[in-house]
Amino acid sequence: MTEIKAGLEDIVVGQQDICFIDGDKGELVYRGYHIDELAPYATFEEIVYLLWHGKLPNQKELAQLNDRLVARRSLNEDHLKLIRSMPSNARPMSVCRTGVSQIGLYDPEKLTFDKETSLLKADDILAKTPTIMATFDRYRRGLRPIPPREDLSHAANFLWMLNGKEPTREAEKALDLYLVLLAEHDYNASTFACRVTASTWAGMYSAVVSGIGALSGHAHGGAVQEAMEQFQEIGNVNNVEPWFEGCLNSKKRIMGIGHRVYKALDPRAPHLRARVEALAGQSENRKWFDIAAKLEEITGQHPFFQERKLYPNVDYYSAPLLHMLGLENDMFTPMFALSRIAGWCAHIMAQYADNRLIRPRADYVGPKGLKWTPLEDR
Amino acid sequence: MTEIKAGLEDIVVGQQDICFIDGDKGELVYRGYHIDELAPYATFEEIVYLLWHGKLPNQKELAQLNDRLVARRSLNEDHLKLIRSMPSNARPMSVCRTGVSQIGLYDPEKLTFDKETSLLKADDILAKTPTIMATFDRYRRGLRPIPPREDLSHAANFLWMLNGKEPTREAEKALDLYLVLLAEHDYNASTFACRVTASTWAGMYSAVVSGIGALSGHAHGGAVQEAMEQFQEIGNVNNVEPWFEGCLNSKKRIMGIGHRVYKALDPRAPHLRARVEALAGQSENRKWFDIAAKLEEITGQHPFFQERKLYPNVDYYSAPLLHMLGLENDMFTPMFALSRIAGWCAHIMAQYADNRLIRPRADYVGPKGLKWTPLEDR
Repeated sequence: MTEIKAGLEDIVVGQQDICFIDGDKGELVYRGYHIDELAPYATFEEIVYLLWHGKLPNQKELAQLNDRLVARRSLNEDHLKLIRSMPSNARPMSVCRTGVSQIGLYDPEKLTFDKETSLLKADDILAKTPTIMATFDRYRRGLRPIPPREDLSHAANFLWMLNGKEPTREAEKALDLYLVLLAEHDYNASTFACRVTASTWAGMYSAVVSGIGALSGHAHGGAVQEAMEQFQEIGNVNNVEPWFEGCLNSKKRIMGIGHRVYKALDPRAPHLRARVEALAGQSENRKWFDIAAKLEEITGQHPFFQERKLYPNVDYYSAPLLHMLGLENDMFTPMFALSRIAGWCAHIMAQYADNRLIRPRADYVGPKGLKWTPLEDR
Repeated sequence: MTEIKAGLEDIVVGQQDICFIDGDKGELVYRGYHIDELAPYATFEEIVYLLWHGKLPNQKELAQLNDRLVARRSLNEDHLKLIRSMPSNARPMSVCRTGVSQIGLYDPEKLTFDKETSLLKADDILAKTPTIMATFDRYRRGLRPIPPREDLSHAANFLWMLNGKEPTREAEKALDLYLVLLAEHDYNASTFACRVTASTWAGMYSAVVSGIGALSGHAHGGAVQEAMEQFQEIGNVNNVEPWFEGCLNSKKRIMGIGHRVYKALDPRAPHLRARVEALAGQSENRKWFDIAAKLEEITGQHPFFQERKLYPNVDYYSAPLLHMLGLENDMFTPMFALSRIAGWCAHIMAQYADNRLIRPRADYVGPKGLKWTPLEDR
């Protein structure tokens, strides 16, 4: 009897030099830099360069990357028509999957997998996906799409395309930090999906589309939306305690708390928390920070959560952050994709550079030796 | 040092009762039936029912499945517009990926994963993908699309939509056999991609789109096109021997010979070979059969191929079969997808029925402890 590794847990499938995670210590490292080194200073564009090239860019390299991305932000008329034709009740993650797949139609996906060819495709996907999502969101609200601007950062341009006004400095910084923190996370399920697809020598667009599909599941990127729904269900800070008691009594799971890898505080959570507090200020949005902070405090004091080492994960403060930026709940997971595309593309390029078909086995436990019976005798 | 399982070769990831392969004996079993039991008698629709329900259908069950599929063959106006808008030089596999993703926009992909809901989605994908591909192929040839017919089998309807005339009985039988033989093959790379995506509780459309992406790679479904290009390069039966000598001298790989799993004759190959011969008859297409048969004979007598147990695989006779049906070479891999959708959906439903997130690990071999340097100092 062969040993079965359900879910491939603890199976080591390869080596990589992109991301290191120590779940027990709560450490996250991108290309050698602890996330605490990066979060206070780095822009998303710098992180993209770091993940794709293995080092932080100098001024010239950063300017070149920016030029490449900015030049690819616009969608052609066929893309815009496709998005306009989409049903307004389509799930945004299905829109993201379809939109990225469609831009891949314009790529010959030649059987060349050198780094420079892959970088051009990665640029294209990273630059256009925000435009796809902002365009869809405006169409479904009955608004005209707003073309991208070349003078804004990746984060600010997205908010411009979404709202048609320049974001405040706080809003731009909040989205930029979110994009920095979500960009990469080792062999998570969507990154693995990208690599499995790339391992057949499928093209970059096909691999990223697989990642988007995998991210959409509620056991992966779908959870962030549920975290916001939970805060909205709580509604105000005075309701946190009775709501929490109700959860305990009904054994309902609390969204945004606990992580398969981290058995310590998720190192991204405190950075997001501080940014959510700054973004909220004394506005009416303050209540979302207050609810989240109060629930964090209560769960942190409760033995059930202490014993199991259940702390806020990345979704927990991402939810109020994205809400305060004016995004609908169902746009949260696409925002995750907008960021994670950076990490996916880094892994796809690494897969091409040292490729081997990923194909495990499964034990057959069904019957054998059955004989054909004609239809009329069944 | 953890042991690394590159490509997950020989790692057993789970149990399944859909398909059994014995690569050393050259056996392929669908749900208990050896492919030799099925190939002479079964229609593709019967195989779909067998894979999805675990038993051969009776007359009523088969009629119901047929009604469900036939009712879903048509594309709505938005789908047709999307396909019309696609660049005519788009790769057909990118078209397939985008088209299936787009039909998923009309599915709410509710978070219900019961068998009946999944079957409705599987019906939709299986029924519409042939229409997507035939429509695209006609548009790129400058022809108007031909709507599906309800009175034809899955195989005959596709040829009708492609050519605008009813296929001969031989042509219908040839395509039907091809669809039967390619429908399922255990945990191949594309099926694994479907399962990885489904394992996050992503929806059926997302999972199938991942499978299409993975199939497009030339280490997987892309190889069948290369087999035809090889026969076209040989050109006529008198050129087989000199061409083969040239391959030996230049150590060029022969396409369609050898398989990662089968170290015996691929059990699908003789069924395809017989059908290719019947389809060719004494027409001018006979030359493709003659070239393939001659090359099979020569390689079979050569020690290099004998020692390594390299025999024709499923691509080898699929290529001339699809060519004789009037398909362009770049439509061959989409035809593979049209068939394999049946197996993918069976595996996705099995994954939902006993789900566990598929997430292996990778060893980090990069640096740690790097310190932030401001941009101007880099």
